[in-house]
Amino acid sequence: MNLLFIGDVVGSPGRDMVKEYLPKLKEKYSPQLTIINGENAAGGKGITEKIYRQFLEQGAQAITLGNHAWDNREIFEFIDEAKYLVRPANFPKNTPGKGLIFIKINQLEVAIINLQGRTFMNPIDCPLQKADELISIAKERTPFIFVDFHAEVTSEKQALGWYLDGKVSAVVGTHTHVQTADHRILPGGTAYLTDVGMTGPYDGILGVERSAVLKRFLTGLPVRFEVPEGGRNQLSAVNIELDRKTGLAKKIEPIRINDDQPFYS
Amino acid sequence: MNLLFIGDVVGSPGRDMVKEYLPKLKEKYSPQLTIINGENAAGGKGITEKIYRQFLEQGAQAITLGNHAWDNREIFEFIDEAKYLVRPANFPKNTPGKGLIFIKINQLEVAIINLQGRTFMNPIDCPLQKADELISIAKERTPFIFVDFHAEVTSEKQALGWYLDGKVSAVVGTHTHVQTADHRILPGGTAYLTDVGMTGPYDGILGVERSAVLKRFLTGLPVRFEVPEGGRNQLSAVNIELDRKTGLAKKIEPIRINDDQPFYS
Amino acid sequence: MNLLFIGDVVGSPGRDMVKEYLPKLKEKYSPQLTIINGENAAGGKGITEKIYRQFLEQGAQAITLGNHAWDNREIFEFIDEAKYLVRPANFPKNTPGKGLIFIKINQLEVAIINLQGRTFMNPIDCPLQKADELISIAKERTPFIFVDFHAEVTSEKQALGWYLDGKVSAVVGTHTHVQTADHRILPGGTAYLTDVGMTGPYDGILGVERSAVLKRFLTGLPVRFEVPEGGRNQLSAVNIELDRKTGLAKKIEPIRINDDQPFYS
Amino acid sequence: MNLLFIGDVVGSPGRDMVKEYLPKLKEKYSPQLTIINGENAAGGKGITEKIYRQFLEQGAQAITLGNHAWDNREIFEFIDEAKYLVRPANFPKNTPGKGLIFIKINQLEVAIINLQGRTFMNPIDCPLQKADELISIAKERTPFIFVDFHAEVTSEKQALGWYLDGKVSAVVGTHTHVQTADHRILPGGTAYLTDVGMTGPYDGILGVERSAVLKRFLTGLPVRFEVPEGGRNQLSAVNIELDRKTGLAKKIEPIRINDDQPFYS
Ligand SMILES: [Fe+2]
Ligand SMILES: [Fe+2]
Ligand SMILES: [Fe+2]
Ligand SMILES: [Fe+2]
Ligand SMILES: [Fe+2]
Ligand SMILES: [Fe+2]
Ligand SMILES: [Fe+2]
Ligand SMILES: [Fe+2]
Repeated sequence: MNLLFIGDVVGSPGRDMVKEYLPKLKEKYSPQLTIINGENAAGGKGITEKIYRQFLEQGAQAITLGNHAWDNREIFEFIDEAKYLVRPANFPKNTPGKGLIFIKINQLEVAIINLQGRTFMNPIDCPLQKADELISIAKERTPFIFVDFHAEVTSEKQALGWYLDGKVSAVVGTHTHVQTADHRILPGGTAYLTDVGMTGPYDGILGVERSAVLKRFLTGLPVRFEVPEGGRNQLSAVNIELDRKTGLAKKIEPIRINDDQPFYS
Repeated sequence: MNLLFIGDVVGSPGRDMVKEYLPKLKEKYSPQLTIINGENAAGGKGITEKIYRQFLEQGAQAITLGNHAWDNREIFEFIDEAKYLVRPANFPKNTPGKGLIFIKINQLEVAIINLQGRTFMNPIDCPLQKADELISIAKERTPFIFVDFHAEVTSEKQALGWYLDGKVSAVVGTHTHVQTADHRILPGGTAYLTDVGMTGPYDGILGVERSAVLKRFLTGLPVRFEVPEGGRNQLSAVNIELDRKTGLAKKIEPIRINDDQPFYS
Repeated sequence: MNLLFIGDVVGSPGRDMVKEYLPKLKEKYSPQLTIINGENAAGGKGITEKIYRQFLEQGAQAITLGNHAWDNREIFEFIDEAKYLVRPANFPKNTPGKGLIFIKINQLEVAIINLQGRTFMNPIDCPLQKADELISIAKERTPFIFVDFHAEVTSEKQALGWYLDGKVSAVVGTHTHVQTADHRILPGGTAYLTDVGMTGPYDGILGVERSAVLKRFLTGLPVRFEVPEGGRNQLSAVNIELDRKTGLAKKIEPIRINDDQPFYS
Repeated sequence: MNLLFIGDVVGSPGRDMVKEYLPKLKEKYSPQLTIINGENAAGGKGITEKIYRQFLEQGAQAITLGNHAWDNREIFEFIDEAKYLVRPANFPKNTPGKGLIFIKINQLEVAIINLQGRTFMNPIDCPLQKADELISIAKERTPFIFVDFHAEVTSEKQALGWYLDGKVSAVVGTHTHVQTADHRILPGGTAYLTDVGMTGPYDGILGVERSAVLKRFLTGLPVRFEVPEGGRNQLSAVNIELDRKTGLAKKIEPIRINDDQPFYS
């Protein structure tokens, strides 16, 4: 079984890339399940119901989020009804939305978990303990468990990967907006990648207008971050092949599409 | 001209990898200049004079450092005499050591600059301003300028890359110990890679014993970090080809050697 | 009922102040209960069993801790047997020690809770949720509930104070080592003080040798922090008068003893 | 000579307190110089030209700022013309505004310096080095030098106090919005107070609507911080008496006005 995951889609440039390349990626990899991280899909900040529905119509079965989940306040109006939207599970009890969902694919079910890190991020509940809790729930229904770990530092991400090795199908990181080159199958059979990277502007800084970010670092003054439109774009993703019996990973293949690394079918 | 850079060498596992593979890499890439980041070379913490000299004897021409530069107090005894040792340049005035050195290669000279980031790191001087200052010094002698930017977050690293695009030969990041997959030649001709990654244990967390890091995240209690010996190791590096006239980059090629990605000549 | 609380005792200078002034403070305030924060009692880092017992012998009935609780590894050997030692309650399950204890005073019982903040501190469980949980346990036995909130930022401390107003006898902060001047009885009857301050050297920086701290800020280099001995010392504390029926506070009086503010009986 | 300094004025509640009590404080202390920290004067975020002028009309001779200086973008329109407005001096070169100003009082001149800390704050230039630089400029004109150090942590604030002891008239801290109780004359003659505290709502959290801050800590979700109006207010300030010959401090007296500590003349 193939599972395709597209990293943080940023603004309309990111959405344009999904629209253009998701059909091509589906043709190339024939994924049974496509997941998109949409925490930056609405102008870089959060997601709207319209964009969430677009992603589903374009062929995604689940949308994960991250620390920017709440930036567009529209989220509070539709998250509880959005069956295929997963927000970081380790927010406190009573947080709107779900941190674990199940997607049916033919006779199979895949559990999708979103977790958020704590190092250099806002304090929330322990992602490792929450992972234990949700995995024991998921295990009762399926061996196919996908984890999007939205976190800043490499140590915390690798820690969760090793902690869950052999217990889940895959742990892939998001949030830094830069794809890492450390994709591997851990010894216990879990596919791992520290960060999938970002889908959006290719010549910005993490998908944001360069001049604003540079001004921020040079002056220390507040700036407004905008997603630059009309330039070159990129798509970052990962394809993971799972064993149909064990749910463990057989292969993990990072995907990057940009002007320097054009898509080939 | 080829320039080979090996990312954060961690403890004896990392040094063993340098010893074993540096000759092979030299044969494969024929670099005119080899640089090693040695901030974790002594048991994961800092560097000793003996290790510094070993690296030179093994064929490196310069050793860069980072936030762990000062962890082994022996550094204060030899840094001022160590001609080929470069510490982050944006520490305050009167800091021991040098942040910019020049290496002669036949008739050419290469300037090597080490800078340290500030986001989620200890406060020091502005790396962008310091870069401007050092580059204007270096430019009077050579167009070949290599920058090792030791920083935590992707935004700060990409910001420096774009800020220096066209002004230096290469900006490569270190510190996160995970190689990123975003190597590219920026439009102005500067080679860029957010992080080169780490050279050391392949099955640790950032080169550190897994159980200690997991205990840290699970319990919040203080732990002692040790570099695990006797296991599988990895090497992370990058080869950059520079134009002999302009000093700008023609090619950037990331290098990873580990059990899953064996070296081939 | 009077409750005397002495803020972070730092090293032997702090212990000397407790030895000298605790008898005098007892005479002056006649507290039914004396509590000492001992997280820095052993050379500035943690606490030993010997020091813990000394505090009890000198007339304290309970010792609270904080983020430095674990710095002296001896703690792990005696914390589980130490009935009157309270560590931050919002460390993960299975952490050694207790975060809530009960002290019997004649026919009364007082609950003592230690909590640790999360802003600019290591990630642990939510202190507000943990407070709710422990207070509902304590309330079944007694209306006298004392909370030592060990936290960095004023916002988090005031937040807990207001959150618990009317539910506990007192919320007093520790950790910043500087007494604040905002002691008050909140409208619901809870005594509040953002930080009690530190007991130890009067001419250090937070109880640490000045030259080391200044070197740290001036150079960014690692330094070793030592508690300076033989100089002038200070004691910081607070006396809280509780209503014997409701357990709520009637009066809160900060205490500072140093060369500029000598003790008077 | 008496110098009156009023801590972070927050929104209209803070401005109302200045309006009501500044005349009374002037009558009580007869300050030759009145300084107000106005970084939160406009709705909690920054300052407008109108408010700046109001403060001057109400009898302040200088307005200091802090990290919130830039929150109201109107600042960029008038800061360069505002002779009596001082922003943190250790922002990078070319930052709008001034970090050091001189105020003439009869035949005397007083230098006013604003600095910002770096620990747990945005990275800027070193406040200690910048202090050295500005003090050597100021010393050529006057021994009366007042420093408002806007910083988060007690260690950095005490470090600057001791670092400048004997070189300036006073170092007082701002930013935490809670007055500390450690006012003293350091051995070299410099008046010191870690934080002057805040002027604004008495029943908020740091001057902000309690429910929003509590929601933030309880849920981790983004909230909008508003300054509550119509409730009880407080004023925090400090009066410092300087020797007319040496410029050093003879007395430092903290001031708090609120419902629990009413003003008395
Ligand atoms: Fe993102
Ligand atoms: Fe994110
Ligand atoms: Fe490193
Ligand atoms: Fe590092
Ligand atoms: Fe402490
Ligand atoms: Fe502490
Ligand atoms: Fe403020
Ligand atoms: Fe501030």
